[in-house]
Amino acid sequence: MRILVIGGVAAGASAATKARRTNEDAEIVLFEKGNYVSFANCGLPYYIGGVIEDRDELLLVTPELFKERFNIDVRINHEVTDIDSAAKTITVRNAEGESAEAYDKLIIATGGKPVALPIKGIDSDGVYHVFTVPDADAIVSKLELGMKRAVVVGGGFIGLESAENLRAKGLEVTVIEKLPQVMSNMDPEFSDVLIGELNDKGIQVLTGLGVSEITGEGKADGVILDNGARLEADMVIMAAGVRGSTELAEKAGCRLGETGGVWTDGNMRTSVSDIYAAGDMVESVNMLTGKKVRIPLAGSANKQGRVAGANAAGGNMQFKGVLGTAIIKVGELTAARTGLNAREAAQQGRASASLYAPGFSNATYYPDAEPMIIKLTVEKQSGLLLGAQAIGRKGVDKRIDVLATALYSHLSVFDLENLDLAYAPPFSSAKDPVIMGGMIAANMIRGELDYCLPQDIPALLARPSTVVLDVRTEEEWEDGHIEGAILLPVDELRSRYAELDPAKEYAVYCGVGYRAYNACLFLKAKGYRVKNISGGMRAINMSV
Amino acid sequence: MRILVIGGVAAGASAATKARRTNEDAEIVLFEKGNYVSFANCGLPYYIGGVIEDRDELLLVTPELFKERFNIDVRINHEVTDIDSAAKTITVRNAEGESAEAYDKLIIATGGKPVALPIKGIDSDGVYHVFTVPDADAIVSKLELGMKRAVVVGGGFIGLESAENLRAKGLEVTVIEKLPQVMSNMDPEFSDVLIGELNDKGIQVLTGLGVSEITGEGKADGVILDNGARLEADMVIMAAGVRGSTELAEKAGCRLGETGGVWTDGNMRTSVSDIYAAGDMVESVNMLTGKKVRIPLAGSANKQGRVAGANAAGGNMQFKGVLGTAIIKVGELTAARTGLNAREAAQQGRASASLYAPGFSNATYYPDAEPMIIKLTVEKQSGLLLGAQAIGRKGVDKRIDVLATALYSHLSVFDLENLDLAYAPPFSSAKDPVIMGGMIAANMIRGELDYCLPQDIPALLARPSTVVLDVRTEEEWEDGHIEGAILLPVDELRSRYAELDPAKEYAVYCGVGYRAYNACLFLKAKGYRVKNISGGMRAINMSV
Repeated sequence: MRILVIGGVAAGASAATKARRTNEDAEIVLFEKGNYVSFANCGLPYYIGGVIEDRDELLLVTPELFKERFNIDVRINHEVTDIDSAAKTITVRNAEGESAEAYDKLIIATGGKPVALPIKGIDSDGVYHVFTVPDADAIVSKLELGMKRAVVVGGGFIGLESAENLRAKGLEVTVIEKLPQVMSNMDPEFSDVLIGELNDKGIQVLTGLGVSEITGEGKADGVILDNGARLEADMVIMAAGVRGSTELAEKAGCRLGETGGVWTDGNMRTSVSDIYAAGDMVESVNMLTGKKVRIPLAGSANKQGRVAGANAAGGNMQFKGVLGTAIIKVGELTAARTGLNAREAAQQGRASASLYAPGFSNATYYPDAEPMIIKLTVEKQSGLLLGAQAIGRKGVDKRIDVLATALYSHLSVFDLENLDLAYAPPFSSAKDPVIMGGMIAANMIRGELDYCLPQDIPALLARPSTVVLDVRTEEEWEDGHIEGAILLPVDELRSRYAELDPAKEYAVYCGVGYRAYNACLFLKAKGYRVKNISGGMRAINMSV
Repeated sequence: MRILVIGGVAAGASAATKARRTNEDAEIVLFEKGNYVSFANCGLPYYIGGVIEDRDELLLVTPELFKERFNIDVRINHEVTDIDSAAKTITVRNAEGESAEAYDKLIIATGGKPVALPIKGIDSDGVYHVFTVPDADAIVSKLELGMKRAVVVGGGFIGLESAENLRAKGLEVTVIEKLPQVMSNMDPEFSDVLIGELNDKGIQVLTGLGVSEITGEGKADGVILDNGARLEADMVIMAAGVRGSTELAEKAGCRLGETGGVWTDGNMRTSVSDIYAAGDMVESVNMLTGKKVRIPLAGSANKQGRVAGANAAGGNMQFKGVLGTAIIKVGELTAARTGLNAREAAQQGRASASLYAPGFSNATYYPDAEPMIIKLTVEKQSGLLLGAQAIGRKGVDKRIDVLATALYSHLSVFDLENLDLAYAPPFSSAKDPVIMGGMIAANMIRGELDYCLPQDIPALLARPSTVVLDVRTEEEWEDGHIEGAILLPVDELRSRYAELDPAKEYAVYCGVGYRAYNACLFLKAKGYRVKNISGGMRAINMSV
C-alpha cells in the first residue's frame, strides 16, 4: 500500500506517523512545499519576541528523523500542484521539475494561508506574515537592523501575540482591527479588557478601522487607514486571518462543505474515495450543535491528522469534532473561551441567558489569589451549558478546560454546581469559580431570582419604573458607583427596606453579586420586584 | 417555621444561609460549641507557617454579620448535648446552663474531630491538633517561645501541610506515619516523590512506624515509636485523621450507614423525619460506583450544607455525591487524585488497567514548562475512565480538575482523546497531557499494544523469556538505565532489529514512552512479542 501525505506541519506530520504505526508495511511519502516539517507555528510570535530564545526549539522533527524512526520518505520543497483522483496520482513539482506519484490512499493536509488583503503595497519589502519559520526568520533579521515602529494588521491570536512580542523588542506598536473589537470570538467586554492591557504595555489599538494602503516605494514606510489617517511604520505585520488552502482538494473533486472548508466524515474521509483530509482547511462538526464549523487550530489539526493517518492505513478511528475552545495570553492576562456565546447561541436558535461568575484563582485567604471573571452562557429552561468565556491573571486556563470538558459531556448548570473539583487553598476555593458559576446559573434556572447584565444598566436607568440599587458599604460607594443608582447597604436592608418604593422594580448590584443576591431574595420575599445585576461592580468594570 | 442548625463551620454555615435565602420567614438559630463560626480550617497550617500572615483572614464571617445580613441567630459557645426527635427538641448547654430548644426542621452539621490515639501522654502540654482556630493560636503562641523540634504524627493532608509550615518556621520536623506511605489515598510511587520533596526541604519522614507514647511529665518532650526508638520534640502535632462526630445524630436516632457515617438521601435527609445532616460526619455516594463512602473535605461539606439548608427551608435540591477528588501542595510539588486507583477499582470488582502519561505543564518550546506525570486507571474492555492521579510542579491542578469533570461525566478514554482543551504555548501542548493520556489509553484499549508498569520490571527481569529493551540514545543510556536491560536505540531499530531474538518477549522503555511505543509497533509488525513499559524512565524514576 502506498500512502501519500500532502503537507507536513501539524495535521500532515501526525497523519504520516500514525499511518506508519498503524501499518508497518505501507510505503509512506510526505510532500511539503516549504523547507520545514512539523514546526511549532504557535511559537513563532514568541520566537520573534525572544521569549523562545533558541530557534531549534521551533523545529520539532526533521526529515531525517522521519526516515530513521518511521521509515517515512519526507520530501521538503516539493509542491503538489494537482491531484487526479481517477488515475489516483498526484503531480509534484520541485526544483528539478514535475513528476507524477501514484497513491493507494491520499491524505490532504494543505492547511491554510494568511489572508492577503487586496491593497496597494501588500507585496512591499517590510510587510510580513507570522506563519512559517522563514516568516519569523525574516522578521528577526529585520528587527536586528533596529526597527522603531510596527503596525500589526489584525487583532486576533496572531496579531495580538505578535504585537506584544514586537513591543517586547522595544518597538512602538499599533494594532489595527477592522471589526469594532479585538478577539472577535469573545464578547466585546473581554476585548475592552485586552485592549486596556495592551495599552498598559504601551501598545496602541485602533478598532473599527481597516487598512487601505501600505505606503512606501517597494519598501513599506507606513499604512493609510480607512479614515485617511496615516501611520508610520518600519514594518507591517499582516495578521488578518487564515484562509483554508482548499485548492488542491477541489482539484481532486473533493466536496467543500457549507463553511467553505473541505467536507469530511467523522473518519476524516473526503467525498472522493481513498482521499482523506485533515487540518486547517477542513470543516469540523461543532460537538455541541452538530453544525459544521471551520476553526483552524493546532489541537484539532493534530487530532484530525492522527485519525486520517490511522484510517488511511487501515485503522478505524473517529474525530468527534470541536467546541471552539481557544485561549490567548495578552500581557499578564489570560482570555479564553469555549462553546457558544449568546450571539452564537441565538444563531443556532437556542434561547440562552448569560451571567457572570466573578471569582478568584485560589482561596482569598491564601497568598496571590488573583481575580477572574467567568461568563457562562446557558440554555434557558434546560440549564444546559452552551459556552463560557473567562479572563484573569491566573487559573483561567484551568477553568476554561473544566468548562470545555463539561461542554463535551453536555453537562447542565445542575451538574456544574455538583462537580467534585480539587480544593486546597493554593489551588482554588471551597467553591471553585466554576462551581460557583454553576450555583448562580442553577439558582437562575430554578427560578429563584432574575438576573440582568451590566450592559443593561443604561436601559434600566432610563426606565422611570426601575431603580438601580447599590447594596455595598458607604466606603465602597464613595470609591465609585453607578451614576444614578441609590445606596442601601445590604447589612442595613432588614431595618431600612421600608424606605424603598414597592411600586418600583429594583436592579441590585454589589461587588461581585453575592450581597446583591442575598438582598434580592430578601426584597423579593418582602414583595419587591428585583433583579440581580450579574457580577456586580467586578463585571461592570471588568476589573481583573 | 423554626430551623435549628448544629455546627457553624463549612456545612452548618452554608446550610443556615441557604435556608435563609430559601425562606425569609423562618426563624433560624445556629449553635456552635466553639468560639468561631465559618472559619477557614483549610488555612490553619498556612497560618501557623506565616504564609497567611493575618489571622483575621481565617475568620470568614462573624456572628454579627449572620445577624445583620441573614437574620440568623448564631450562638457560639453553645454545645448541643442531646436531640429528642419525638418531641422535636434539642438540649443546649452554655456557660449559663442547659436549656431546650424546639425545632420544626433540624440540620446536624457536627463535622468531625481529630482521631485521639489511645497512648500515654496524649493530653500533655505541647501536644496539638491543627483543627480549630484556638488550636492554631496555641501553636503560634508556642512557636513564639522558640521551639526547636516538632514531631508530626500522621502523613495525610494536615500532617504534611503542618510539617512543611513548621519547617518554614525553622523547626526540625519529623513526620511519623503508621502506614508504609504518606498520602494513603494515592499510589505508593506518588508517596515516594512527596517524601523526597519533604526530605529536600529538610523534613524527615518515617513510614511504617506508629507512636506508642508521648514522653514528658505533663509537658511533651518527645515520642517513643513502635520500634522503641525515641525522638525528642518540643511539640507534637497529632494529625492521625479525622473521625466523624456522629454521636448527636445517633442520639436523635439517625441511622448510620455502612461506612459509619450518618446516612442521608440525596436531599441530605437523615432516616429521622425533619432532621437533615451535612458535612464531615455524613456518608456520601461515590458518583462513579454508586457505593457509599465517607470523605470529609471542605468542598463536599459546603455543597451538602447548601442542599440541606435549602431543603430544610422548603426547597428541593440534590447533592449528587463525590468522586474523592483531592489535592495537596508539598514543597513546590502538587499531588492530586480523583476517582479510583487500581486497588479501589479491584475492591469494586472492576477489572482495570493503569498507565502513565508523562507530559509537561505547557509547550516545551515555551519557557518554564515543568514535567508532570499523570497516572490513569481505566476499565478494561470499555475504556471507561475510573480514576487519575497526578504529580508535578505546575498545572497539575488543572489536569486533575479536567479529569474529575470527565469522571463526573462518565467519559471513556475515547472521549479523553477527543477533548477540545485550550491550547496556546504558555498553557499547554497541542496535545495536552490529559488528551495524550487518553490517546495512550485508547491505543491500549483498542488492542494496538500491550503495556506494563515500571513496578513490573523486577519480575520481567527475573523471567528468562523476557528482555528489557532500552530504545533511547547511547547518551541517555550512559546517564542511567535499568540494570539488566539491553540498548538498541529506536532510530537504529529498523536496520538492526534482526539482532533481537524472536523467541523472546521484549519489554521496551524510553524516556516517557513515546519512542518505545513506536519501537513496539515496529517490532510487533515484525512478529516480536512486545510490551511498552508505561511512562518510560520518567515514570520509572517518578522524576518531576
